Amino acid sequence: MQKLFEYNWQVREDWFTWCESVPEEELLKERVGGIGSILYTLFHIVDVEYSWICGLQGDPEPEEPPFDSYASLSKVRELSEQYHKEVESFITSWSDEMENLQLTEVGSNGKTFTYRYGEVMRHVIAHEIHHIGQLSIWSREIGRQPVTANLIDRGLFE
Amino acid sequence: MQKLFEYNWQVREDWFTWCESVPEEELLKERVGGIGSILYTLFHIVDVEYSWICGLQGDPEPEEPPFDSYASLSKVRELSEQYHKEVESFITSWSDEMENLQLTEVGSNGKTFTYRYGEVMRHVIAHEIHHIGQLSIWSREIGRQPVTANLIDRGLFE
Repeated sequence: MQKLFEYNWQVREDWFTWCESVPEEELLKERVGGIGSILYTLFHIVDVEYSWICGLQGDPEPEEPPFDSYASLSKVRELSEQYHKEVESFITSWSDEMENLQLTEVGSNGKTFTYRYGEVMRHVIAHEIHHIGQLSIWSREIGRQPVTANLIDRGLFE
Repeated sequence: MQKLFEYNWQVREDWFTWCESVPEEELLKERVGGIGSILYTLFHIVDVEYSWICGLQGDPEPEEPPFDSYASLSKVRELSEQYHKEVESFITSWSDEMENLQLTEVGSNGKTFTYRYGEVMRHVIAHEIHHIGQLSIWSREIGRQPVTANLIDRGLFE
């Protein structure tokens, strides 16, 4: 499980670096599909990972910060780094016995949902990979080579 | 690990169903980014998963079948079902002790690569999720709602 998080963090870092060479207006431009712009996608990935991990840690889930206050590469990157310490420490301490613990969430309609911790962990992993796949299309649409999505050859298993 | 494969298979099935309501010319249309068309993406996902699993089983890796012979929804779906029996049986029999087994591959340049089985398994998982993320953008570009990528609420942990 940890390895897939490490993969996501590496790929995210590669995308932040990729963003450095792209004009900020392209990063913020509203695009078709996904959840909008390239930068908002990265912001959303960072926010969703952190929110779920807060839930799993028994912490109150933070409100999504207003994107308007984070609408620059440096600010999204900073937010990612800020959240990362806590996220990483939870992921590092993950063990198989936690798989079946239960997280109870109350939806906006007042309905209660119960998830296994293992389900949430995999949801968070798939969530990031899915959105990164979207970035790879937009990258080509603006004429840029996307970050490789390969998991092999990243040194994750050395 | 198995759960993420099950997730991919469910989502893939949902995309096949989604394809049923889209004109075949849209499915085959060459698009920007990714590896081309919607249908070729699904074909590629199916082929790549099977090839790696063949490798992990110690079977000779099959040549990629020519897409020209599979360029219809029903044929890609059939190929997916045909390969699936073998893939599923390998994934079902997966156990943690297999994580560190080694797969040696010879690249097209004659160079030898060695991968841990666990690395290959995660590569295959991420590969499919990534390409499915690409489909979700193209789906909106042709005015259709994409298949949900949510892993929670699919009944995978009941």
